[in-house]
Amino acid sequence: MKPALHAIDANAPPLPYYAPAGHECALFELAWKRRVPLLVKGPTGCGKTRFVAHMAAKLGLPLFTVSCHDDLTAADLTGRYLLKGGETVWVDGPLTRAVRQGGICYLDEVVEARKDVAVVLHPLADDRRVLPLERTGEQLIAPPHFMLVVSYNPGYQSLLKALKPSTRQRFAAIEFGFLPHAQEVAVVAAESGLVPERVAPLVTLAARLRHLKGHDLEEGVSTRLLVYCASLIAEGLPLRDAVLAAMIEPLTDDADVKAALIEVAQAVIG
Amino acid sequence: MKPALHAIDANAPPLPYYAPAGHECALFELAWKRRVPLLVKGPTGCGKTRFVAHMAAKLGLPLFTVSCHDDLTAADLTGRYLLKGGETVWVDGPLTRAVRQGGICYLDEVVEARKDVAVVLHPLADDRRVLPLERTGEQLIAPPHFMLVVSYNPGYQSLLKALKPSTRQRFAAIEFGFLPHAQEVAVVAAESGLVPERVAPLVTLAARLRHLKGHDLEEGVSTRLLVYCASLIAEGLPLRDAVLAAMIEPLTDDADVKAALIEVAQAVIG
Amino acid sequence: MKPALHAIDANAPPLPYYAPAGHECALFELAWKRRVPLLVKGPTGCGKTRFVAHMAAKLGLPLFTVSCHDDLTAADLTGRYLLKGGETVWVDGPLTRAVRQGGICYLDEVVEARKDVAVVLHPLADDRRVLPLERTGEQLIAPPHFMLVVSYNPGYQSLLKALKPSTRQRFAAIEFGFLPHAQEVAVVAAESGLVPERVAPLVTLAARLRHLKGHDLEEGVSTRLLVYCASLIAEGLPLRDAVLAAMIEPLTDDADVKAALIEVAQAVIG
Amino acid sequence: MKPALHAIDANAPPLPYYAPAGHECALFELAWKRRVPLLVKGPTGCGKTRFVAHMAAKLGLPLFTVSCHDDLTAADLTGRYLLKGGETVWVDGPLTRAVRQGGICYLDEVVEARKDVAVVLHPLADDRRVLPLERTGEQLIAPPHFMLVVSYNPGYQSLLKALKPSTRQRFAAIEFGFLPHAQEVAVVAAESGLVPERVAPLVTLAARLRHLKGHDLEEGVSTRLLVYCASLIAEGLPLRDAVLAAMIEPLTDDADVKAALIEVAQAVIG
Amino acid sequence: MKPALHAIDANAPPLPYYAPAGHECALFELAWKRRVPLLVKGPTGCGKTRFVAHMAAKLGLPLFTVSCHDDLTAADLTGRYLLKGGETVWVDGPLTRAVRQGGICYLDEVVEARKDVAVVLHPLADDRRVLPLERTGEQLIAPPHFMLVVSYNPGYQSLLKALKPSTRQRFAAIEFGFLPHAQEVAVVAAESGLVPERVAPLVTLAARLRHLKGHDLEEGVSTRLLVYCASLIAEGLPLRDAVLAAMIEPLTDDADVKAALIEVAQAVIG
Amino acid sequence: MKPALHAIDANAPPLPYYAPAGHECALFELAWKRRVPLLVKGPTGCGKTRFVAHMAAKLGLPLFTVSCHDDLTAADLTGRYLLKGGETVWVDGPLTRAVRQGGICYLDEVVEARKDVAVVLHPLADDRRVLPLERTGEQLIAPPHFMLVVSYNPGYQSLLKALKPSTRQRFAAIEFGFLPHAQEVAVVAAESGLVPERVAPLVTLAARLRHLKGHDLEEGVSTRLLVYCASLIAEGLPLRDAVLAAMIEPLTDDADVKAALIEVAQAVIG
Repeated sequence: MKPALHAIDANAPPLPYYAPAGHECALFELAWKRRVPLLVKGPTGCGKTRFVAHMAAKLGLPLFTVSCHDDLTAADLTGRYLLKGGETVWVDGPLTRAVRQGGICYLDEVVEARKDVAVVLHPLADDRRVLPLERTGEQLIAPPHFMLVVSYNPGYQSLLKALKPSTRQRFAAIEFGFLPHAQEVAVVAAESGLVPERVAPLVTLAARLRHLKGHDLEEGVSTRLLVYCASLIAEGLPLRDAVLAAMIEPLTDDADVKAALIEVAQAVIG
Repeated sequence: MKPALHAIDANAPPLPYYAPAGHECALFELAWKRRVPLLVKGPTGCGKTRFVAHMAAKLGLPLFTVSCHDDLTAADLTGRYLLKGGETVWVDGPLTRAVRQGGICYLDEVVEARKDVAVVLHPLADDRRVLPLERTGEQLIAPPHFMLVVSYNPGYQSLLKALKPSTRQRFAAIEFGFLPHAQEVAVVAAESGLVPERVAPLVTLAARLRHLKGHDLEEGVSTRLLVYCASLIAEGLPLRDAVLAAMIEPLTDDADVKAALIEVAQAVIG
Repeated sequence: MKPALHAIDANAPPLPYYAPAGHECALFELAWKRRVPLLVKGPTGCGKTRFVAHMAAKLGLPLFTVSCHDDLTAADLTGRYLLKGGETVWVDGPLTRAVRQGGICYLDEVVEARKDVAVVLHPLADDRRVLPLERTGEQLIAPPHFMLVVSYNPGYQSLLKALKPSTRQRFAAIEFGFLPHAQEVAVVAAESGLVPERVAPLVTLAARLRHLKGHDLEEGVSTRLLVYCASLIAEGLPLRDAVLAAMIEPLTDDADVKAALIEVAQAVIG
Repeated sequence: MKPALHAIDANAPPLPYYAPAGHECALFELAWKRRVPLLVKGPTGCGKTRFVAHMAAKLGLPLFTVSCHDDLTAADLTGRYLLKGGETVWVDGPLTRAVRQGGICYLDEVVEARKDVAVVLHPLADDRRVLPLERTGEQLIAPPHFMLVVSYNPGYQSLLKALKPSTRQRFAAIEFGFLPHAQEVAVVAAESGLVPERVAPLVTLAARLRHLKGHDLEEGVSTRLLVYCASLIAEGLPLRDAVLAAMIEPLTDDADVKAALIEVAQAVIG
Repeated sequence: MKPALHAIDANAPPLPYYAPAGHECALFELAWKRRVPLLVKGPTGCGKTRFVAHMAAKLGLPLFTVSCHDDLTAADLTGRYLLKGGETVWVDGPLTRAVRQGGICYLDEVVEARKDVAVVLHPLADDRRVLPLERTGEQLIAPPHFMLVVSYNPGYQSLLKALKPSTRQRFAAIEFGFLPHAQEVAVVAAESGLVPERVAPLVTLAARLRHLKGHDLEEGVSTRLLVYCASLIAEGLPLRDAVLAAMIEPLTDDADVKAALIEVAQAVIG
Repeated sequence: MKPALHAIDANAPPLPYYAPAGHECALFELAWKRRVPLLVKGPTGCGKTRFVAHMAAKLGLPLFTVSCHDDLTAADLTGRYLLKGGETVWVDGPLTRAVRQGGICYLDEVVEARKDVAVVLHPLADDRRVLPLERTGEQLIAPPHFMLVVSYNPGYQSLLKALKPSTRQRFAAIEFGFLPHAQEVAVVAAESGLVPERVAPLVTLAARLRHLKGHDLEEGVSTRLLVYCASLIAEGLPLRDAVLAAMIEPLTDDADVKAALIEVAQAVIG
């Protein structure tokens, strides 16, 4: 799925801007049509979240986004009883709202969530398409225009934090990487307002820093950091200060690694 | 229990579609008659859940399904007190509802549940057939048409997550595997709408990938993923894209393993 | 305590059926008379629970059974405050009810319970015979016809899950094993409805499988599984299918061990 | 503190029966007079609890006993807010009641309690003699006739479960052992109703078994188990059955150790 | 970012006093203008918190400071339901208040907080600038004058306590160190009221002690401790006593290390 | 800070009796004047708590003492919402009361408290002198006569339980040791009523036992235990019994160590 450059969809002004890198839009749309849940994999800041927002807008579907974390439980997704006027009243969670209304429910970084979350997804992510709410006794049937999308970053999956096969095998999957050079220059220039000629060396530097991933760095520079860097330069911050603040300091706290990155930066941007 | 092909029960249109692979339907029915609880073992996506749904419909019994997870406690099964109008009111859990009404209570992936769950099942799963509700002081006697069914996937039982002998020995047990080639082709074709000739090589590829289980893969391709793959092809996605998205990406995040699987796929489907 | 066969108590029709294997009935009765708490040890499914039910009925005492588990706390035994009509109302737990009414309080698998449970038992299980309810400020004195009985299976006591000497030394103790051949044949035939001649080879097979315990198996076949097996055969299931489902599948998930057990079964039952 | 035999205090019929083994009664009384808190150490079932009950009665003081356990928190001792009639009402715990009323507060097995308990005791166990109730804002001053007594069994103190020096150094301490032979025979005979000649060999056997402690046994036979054994014999249970049930089965689950203990028993009691 | 001395902004009397050490003020202001979240790194007591207070005042923005700790959860930041008059009423947390009102939300020592906090920050710290309140169903859009600033001390980041790349890469970052000698003398003299000539040797001593960091000391002397020391001297405490109490005792409990530090101190201050 | 003997402040009868060992009173007073928070270090029972009580009385300030423990949370210090008459009402904790009223807030054994406590102290223990109450939305400014004092025993600081540099560096610090011989004899004689000639050998013995610390003993004999011992002797307990009960049994449970200590005692006191 690291394919040739797509023509950017010209007539979609109200859509969140998204530059496709391959057939991911077609796959998303077909999966939605056949009610196949989708798993989106890829590194930090490569555009997974924006891709999902783009597709939701393109298909005209409401989007329910949940950022998953260590303490996210099934009840945070499905709902819980709250006290109102001396009564316990059931209040739907975002997953339940998405199933009732239809639309895309997007669980970002799903491996971070607690284990019970995965199991809530099981009957919703197979042919039953059902969300059992044990506490209210309801069995919600997902409407045809409901779609479940989850994402995670395989880069820091640990043994403790991995999707079980019984969960993974409920999703078709797609892997995202960073954009090719020319496309990333275009995106960063568009978002930061810096001219492409001044963006290009930053993207070249990013490529160099991404190659260091796994050696000294946990993760390479994201497209987002490139946009920050270019924005600060466009605003008048000296090039070196901007690169230090937006492309080096966010990557490491280690003095030796930092010195090495600064050297790489000087070699590329002077 | 990996027997010859059964004739599919012709006069059962309202039943969830189920293609028996052996004497499992007879065993289920006799166990139900003699009030012997049943344990269903087998890999992800091989049809355990659908088998139980099929048998419940065939025997005309209501089905109470509970997907077990790490945080599922006995109280989630039996019930709890909730505040209503300033009173604490007891609300039955799904197991209690099943015992009061009769029918099949199916605990999917029972080893995932917390340990106290197993013990709630003990007096219900021996000759006493009783569900003690300590919090309400009730001792519910299961009616004759109540049956307890549990399932799990022995493939990823760890030492920490295993049924204790005192629980296992309360159940007759049955092991499920994947369907034989011809039968799996028929099922995938029926569910996806893709013609059997185009399904056959996918099933052949699945068999190849299942042999890799334990070496590079935690679990082989499920019948469910085959249905996803065939559905996306039927909808127009190119064969290779569909195989990548539905039969390879869901199995692994490792770049080397993925490359190896793609090679296997190319050898089989060209 | 693995003594000669007793004559079965002929004039006790309303009693839960129980075939004594030694002097356990006498010991129970004397302990009850002298107010000595009793600890019953033995493997899964050998009849500990039924023995206690039998003795309670014989002595004309109400029986309060609590299946212990990892999350069972002292409060689950003694009671807790619940909200009723805006008031917090104290609700007795099963141990408190047993102490107030008199009778036998039977804690099954007591080592499974949380540590604080053992300590609640201490003042009740020595000469003080007192149950302090700290939350209500009561000090309940156990009536003369109150008796505390606990059980556990020494087979899977771990270091983490063991009775502390300060708890053990509050009980006289008795160890149970499986019944001798002829007696077990009689029990299984009576419970399953299968003729003794057809039960005998199953009991022979069970003895063979019990010898494998500790080698390949965590625990041997219980009398309960023998009853399941004989019941399924009595209902018409082929012998081999019944043995597989009720005497082999419940013991192991390991393919090699299962093959070995099937071989043993074929050697014994043909 | 393992001193010569005391004459038993003749004129104390309403007192819980207690046979002093040394100067422990004098020490207790002087400590009470000088408001020095007391720590009582010793093995299971050697009479620590009865000693404290005896002294409380002798000094005419109410006794508040708390059996400590893993989940006992400071709030269980001091008190907590409960909902009553829609209000949160403060309810004193046993320690607070003892401080308000005066008398002896006895914390049995204090090392079992949670760590916060020790700290609640600190200001009460030094010259401040104050119990701060942070939740109510009270600072209770202990009256002159309040005394704090704690006990534990040094035999199974682990590194995790030990009194910190800052706690220990707030108490004068005394160590208890088992009674000398003649005195233990007298106590067991008095409590069980069995004649001393038949008790004596049981006490001899107990001494033999206590010597095995640390080798095969976690703890030797307590005086309490001797009383159980003698009681069952007095009631008519055969000698061997009583010794097995009350002096051997409670000590071990290990078949080899049990066989060895039975051999020791046969050598002593025939 | 360890640059030349800035002229201190003369016409800012109502500002919290802050002596910039480089271009940090410019970077902060540009980041604020371009809505780039900021991460401030640096050792204990080097002025991170005062820097943020200074910038908030300079930009005329309200400042919401949250000191993070091990038990700080997302709900502590976003808000929670409380019971008021029998109703559950939503009460905003400090992050939610900052987003509603606009201004700077400063999370001090953010790595200390629980993991779910980081994820609450994610949608707020990228181009979405949104704070989803799942419990109320709101999606708050941050106003243009909202800025998120976080800080931590890289000196004691452990493996367990580190920002994940997916969090770090949402921030431009800046590293703080201690002030150069002359500037630190000026700050300590101004804050303590001690004349610069008497402050200078203390700053010299601090530099010596900071070099020991990583060898015998976890962290060197902070500017704050220098101010304490100078204040106590200004108040009349003998020099040696003040240095012991404010520059040595706070650094170590180890007798040998303390003796070594005293020797260093004597060499510098006599 | 182990200085020459001070003359005892003659005209301070209402003060808690305190014999200063150095300049600690002057340091405390100057720190209070300059609003520098104070950290008091020292072994069990050496008089830290009494020192703080003494200084609070001398300066005429109310004293708020909190004994810290493993379960003490920030909310225990700052306050929490309680239900009153159907409303949740905020109730101040001791730290909040001290900040509102002014006076000394003394956190005894602060390292025992949970980590979130340290962070609540941070903004209060630097120049901000502010206590943020996130739950009520208040920012309390400490009045000039508020002072924060914390103590701990460096003797059993573990790696898990240590003050972080970011906390330590907010305090000036002082270390306490035991009193010199003559001064300790005077204190013990005054508190116990035993004549100094009979106290002197006990203090000599204590010095011997304190030298064993770190070898066989976790901590030496505290002044408090000496007072207990002398009190029991004054009351008539034989010398050897008193030494055993108050100076040996509280130090160890190990039979060998105890025998060694008894030998040391016999050598010193005969």
